[in-house]
Amino acid sequence: MSIEAVVFDAYGTLYDVQSVAAVTEDTFPGYGDLITQVWRLKQLEYSWLRSLMRRYANFEAVTRDSLAYTLRVLGLKYDGAAFERIIEKYLDLDLYPDAAAALAAMKDRKLAILSNGSPDMLNELVRNSGLDRVLKATISVDADKIFKPSPDAYRLIEKTLGVPPASVLFVSSNPWDACGAKAFGLNVAWIERVTPEAMALACVESEAIAPLAMFKALRTQMDELGFAPDYRIRSLSELPDIVAAA
Amino acid sequence: MSIEAVVFDAYGTLYDVQSVAAVTEDTFPGYGDLITQVWRLKQLEYSWLRSLMRRYANFEAVTRDSLAYTLRVLGLKYDGAAFERIIEKYLDLDLYPDAAAALAAMKDRKLAILSNGSPDMLNELVRNSGLDRVLKATISVDADKIFKPSPDAYRLIEKTLGVPPASVLFVSSNPWDACGAKAFGLNVAWIERVTPEAMALACVESEAIAPLAMFKALRTQMDELGFAPDYRIRSLSELPDIVAAA
Repeated sequence: MSIEAVVFDAYGTLYDVQSVAAVTEDTFPGYGDLITQVWRLKQLEYSWLRSLMRRYANFEAVTRDSLAYTLRVLGLKYDGAAFERIIEKYLDLDLYPDAAAALAAMKDRKLAILSNGSPDMLNELVRNSGLDRVLKATISVDADKIFKPSPDAYRLIEKTLGVPPASVLFVSSNPWDACGAKAFGLNVAWIERVTPEAMALACVESEAIAPLAMFKALRTQMDELGFAPDYRIRSLSELPDIVAAA
Repeated sequence: MSIEAVVFDAYGTLYDVQSVAAVTEDTFPGYGDLITQVWRLKQLEYSWLRSLMRRYANFEAVTRDSLAYTLRVLGLKYDGAAFERIIEKYLDLDLYPDAAAALAAMKDRKLAILSNGSPDMLNELVRNSGLDRVLKATISVDADKIFKPSPDAYRLIEKTLGVPPASVLFVSSNPWDACGAKAFGLNVAWIERVTPEAMALACVESEAIAPLAMFKALRTQMDELGFAPDYRIRSLSELPDIVAAA
């Protein structure tokens, strides 16, 4: 078999980051979705910027900083308890409905997560969702104190699992992550977690474009970074066939 | 005198990136401002991502790639001539109205630009705007093949001008750039190029937030990266007094 290990990105790929919106909407009515979109955008920016500045802080710190930024820019007032309630939900995100069955169908391979998340965040997330029973490893970039898409982050897969890049299928919904993994030399499947809003975007008039649709589109369309994934899928359920045929 | 050199970021600080909007609006009526906002967001993302991936391409390539992405995501059809007309305007951006007088008032210091722009782009921009007559140097990060906010980029100031970080005042409107320069050890003035849309954002209801206002706000508010600029200014005309008093 040429694919010995299937390694998943966590946030947005196995776990639905948007599931935080229930809590943000409850805390700030009318702003739930917008908060999660801006928060995610800045969370990623801060992970890249801190890596480039060589001022690494773990993903929990980056996640807190980007939430604080988001609430400030949106002009929302809050107390410490509200802030902690939102952060808490980030440790207990919903698993996408296609995840569990796909993982079970590939249990003859080494299955793992490679994520920007800090070890504490990931361990809690994996335990809360029951994935600790099927994953061989939960790899955090924190081991090298640099975030994806640095090659140093993807190198942790071989270091941890002992499987060389050519025998790894890396799965991510994040376009920049798929490009980074491909640039490093992994086999890559990009899962398009396309929302109806993003799909409709091309058809609507400029005046009608809501910020939410725009933000979602910017996170779900393939980037122009000079690399293309090997596989484009719409559901994790397509993976077992790809792995078997590879 | 403790400040021997005043070094400026180019895009968004001395030059108005939004001035491209006249050309994008002419080419794609109704989409002019939205294109420039999404374009700028992705242009920065790509510069950071390529730096992290260690897949540097110069700023002209990144600027082209991010424009191609923007037009694709917005579902806009175009031919090569339209694309080139927009890119061309990027080489002839408008100088902000407060730039020329401020530079003239500080001509007893070493004045320079440190920019992500490629040497070709910057040389044309500086010549087109007449700044070649007042600047001692136009420094491109291309010399080190990495983008700001990497410390390697800010190090080029001392390498080129021979002035140590403690005697440099770095001026940028970009919050992440101000933070990166501060993390490196420069004295930093952050100029808030705040738009009325961004100012009004905090007051409006969620439903009323247009994507344009949201994008502008995300580029003009100070980031949460663990660093703060030494000076916050509203106009470049405040700089001569700051430099004289420092």
